[in-house]
Amino acid sequence: MNIETLHENVGKWLSDSGSESGTVLSSRVRIARNIEKNPFCHWANEKQREKIYQLLFDPVKSSNYFAGGLAVRVDELSKLDRLLLVERYLISLAHSRGMKFTALVVSEGEIISTMINEEDHLRLQVLHSGFQLPEAFELAMEIDKDFQRKIKFAFTREFGYLTACPTNVGTGLRASIMLHLPALVFDRQISSILQAVSKLGLAVRGTFGEGTQSIGNIFQISNQVTLGKSEEEIIVDVEKMVKEVIGHEHKSREKLMKNNRLRLEDRVGRAYGILTNARMLSSRETIELLSTLKLGIDLGIIRSKTITAVKINASRIQTQPAHLQKFEGRELNHLERDICRAKVIKKIFSKRRG
Amino acid sequence: MNIETLHENVGKWLSDSGSESGTVLSSRVRIARNIEKNPFCHWANEKQREKIYQLLFDPVKSSNYFAGGLAVRVDELSKLDRLLLVERYLISLAHSRGMKFTALVVSEGEIISTMINEEDHLRLQVLHSGFQLPEAFELAMEIDKDFQRKIKFAFTREFGYLTACPTNVGTGLRASIMLHLPALVFDRQISSILQAVSKLGLAVRGTFGEGTQSIGNIFQISNQVTLGKSEEEIIVDVEKMVKEVIGHEHKSREKLMKNNRLRLEDRVGRAYGILTNARMLSSRETIELLSTLKLGIDLGIIRSKTITAVKINASRIQTQPAHLQKFEGRELNHLERDICRAKVIKKIFSKRRG
Repeated sequence: MNIETLHENVGKWLSDSGSESGTVLSSRVRIARNIEKNPFCHWANEKQREKIYQLLFDPVKSSNYFAGGLAVRVDELSKLDRLLLVERYLISLAHSRGMKFTALVVSEGEIISTMINEEDHLRLQVLHSGFQLPEAFELAMEIDKDFQRKIKFAFTREFGYLTACPTNVGTGLRASIMLHLPALVFDRQISSILQAVSKLGLAVRGTFGEGTQSIGNIFQISNQVTLGKSEEEIIVDVEKMVKEVIGHEHKSREKLMKNNRLRLEDRVGRAYGILTNARMLSSRETIELLSTLKLGIDLGIIRSKTITAVKINASRIQTQPAHLQKFEGRELNHLERDICRAKVIKKIFSKRRG
Repeated sequence: MNIETLHENVGKWLSDSGSESGTVLSSRVRIARNIEKNPFCHWANEKQREKIYQLLFDPVKSSNYFAGGLAVRVDELSKLDRLLLVERYLISLAHSRGMKFTALVVSEGEIISTMINEEDHLRLQVLHSGFQLPEAFELAMEIDKDFQRKIKFAFTREFGYLTACPTNVGTGLRASIMLHLPALVFDRQISSILQAVSKLGLAVRGTFGEGTQSIGNIFQISNQVTLGKSEEEIIVDVEKMVKEVIGHEHKSREKLMKNNRLRLEDRVGRAYGILTNARMLSSRETIELLSTLKLGIDLGIIRSKTITAVKINASRIQTQPAHLQKFEGRELNHLERDICRAKVIKKIFSKRRG
């Protein structure tokens, strides 16, 4: 893998496979770990951060899980490349600020990634397509085991894994599911359902995590608490709740097809027509049109080998600002990005396959 | 020609040929004639109207100009077929009301048509594609000459041809040009230009003649006065004025391409995308999108063998209510028409040629 050509493809977790791929875009497991007897990142001075980096980078990089992948010092990347990694969900916005001795190790296909010197010394992420939370969790645990052969993480019997932020203490586990819920949004049921989810101790976030808005009817549901529950319990809790939400979305979709089929078909058709014929597309309009198109595929309104969920996923990732600028090989202003976005979408949808 | 299959094609005057076809959709010449010593239609009783019909129908029908065409009693047609003829510009709305002994004779390809027992005993119309007013006028005069071999029209040396309405007395000639003026509309210059046209004694009308609104940026310019000027003078006056208007439209188009090219390309692309992918299309939206698409072709924004002005012309005619109902072979309500309209447009634009 090469940072220079990364933007030309998208991660394997966007392959539209896995169960419930009509509503569940992806399943993500993240674990936070810190090396024992070393200060947390926000307490550490530059020397200490350097040491943490040195203790982690090679052991992680040399793990078999990352063979053929990408290992980079984030603070040595250009601002554009750092933004590119954010857009691919490989690093957090905080990690992209380019603090000294921040690093990233990614597996081939981008299923697994590890941030070094983010909020915690090490943050491991496993991303799977569709509803595959237990699978993602198992893989994360396997890799964690592998890491622990070489690295000693801060752990107490009383608290479990110690983390920089108290909300992560314990398992250090965050399980999150990215959901596409257009029918619940259309039905105006989304807020009451998400409120219920919140009340039951789960967090609901926008497309890019905490503090971000939902666009294109995409929502993230994840656990809030990592302490006082076993890893397995956390996974089961999130799974159960997501199944509930999916159930509601399915009911709303059925209702939509029964009562508004024609208008839905019209919207889906127009979305495709605009996406593939516009000369300029704003980011928001694109995401909204892609959402409509995805719903059209999921409901069988569109049955075409050239209009696929994989292309929609690719469009969502590859029309983001950094991707567009990598595509054109130069900085783009707002208008130029809108023009480039339309070009990239046309290119993706004109492909014979995919 | 057959009234049952008429809706499957459109008249030859929609072939997008003739000069200035980018702005001039069609040139029309109409002459009004009445048989001498017979009361005007609105004075005539049924018996007298029958006599007028008998005096005209066979002589007109048997004229060589109408060989292979269509000759029908309008009052014997269904309401739907009468509306169909209005939509094809072959009869007037007044003529479509189905008064006794009204008739229509049309040439093959619909270039020439004659209404019998409309406001005048005979109204001859010649329709040409593009800016071909002298050609249309010449043909009308030829046919008039042919008619006069068999029919004696009311004519005085003082007034010229006598007609039911004083505004037609004299030459009985109306020369009109159908113009597509999207850039002047966009530029907000259209009203001042059309006002100037009115002040110079010409009439400006909407798409379907007197009292109708302009939709899709289509306007009709024609002479008001038929008395006190020779036929040739009338033709020259209309031609001159239309050339002025076309000149302004061209300037506005140049300005548009210079200052708003990108937005224009975007609008044109989206218009095509929506037209060919919507599941429902209202009449107004269709006409507006077709107007944008036509401008795109005329300005070279769209260069495709499958997106042609001929298809746009056909779409404009064949998506009207009666055409849609003939297409489906049954009555359609408002929603059904919108669905059928989208279907017809898809069909037209998916054709390899035309």
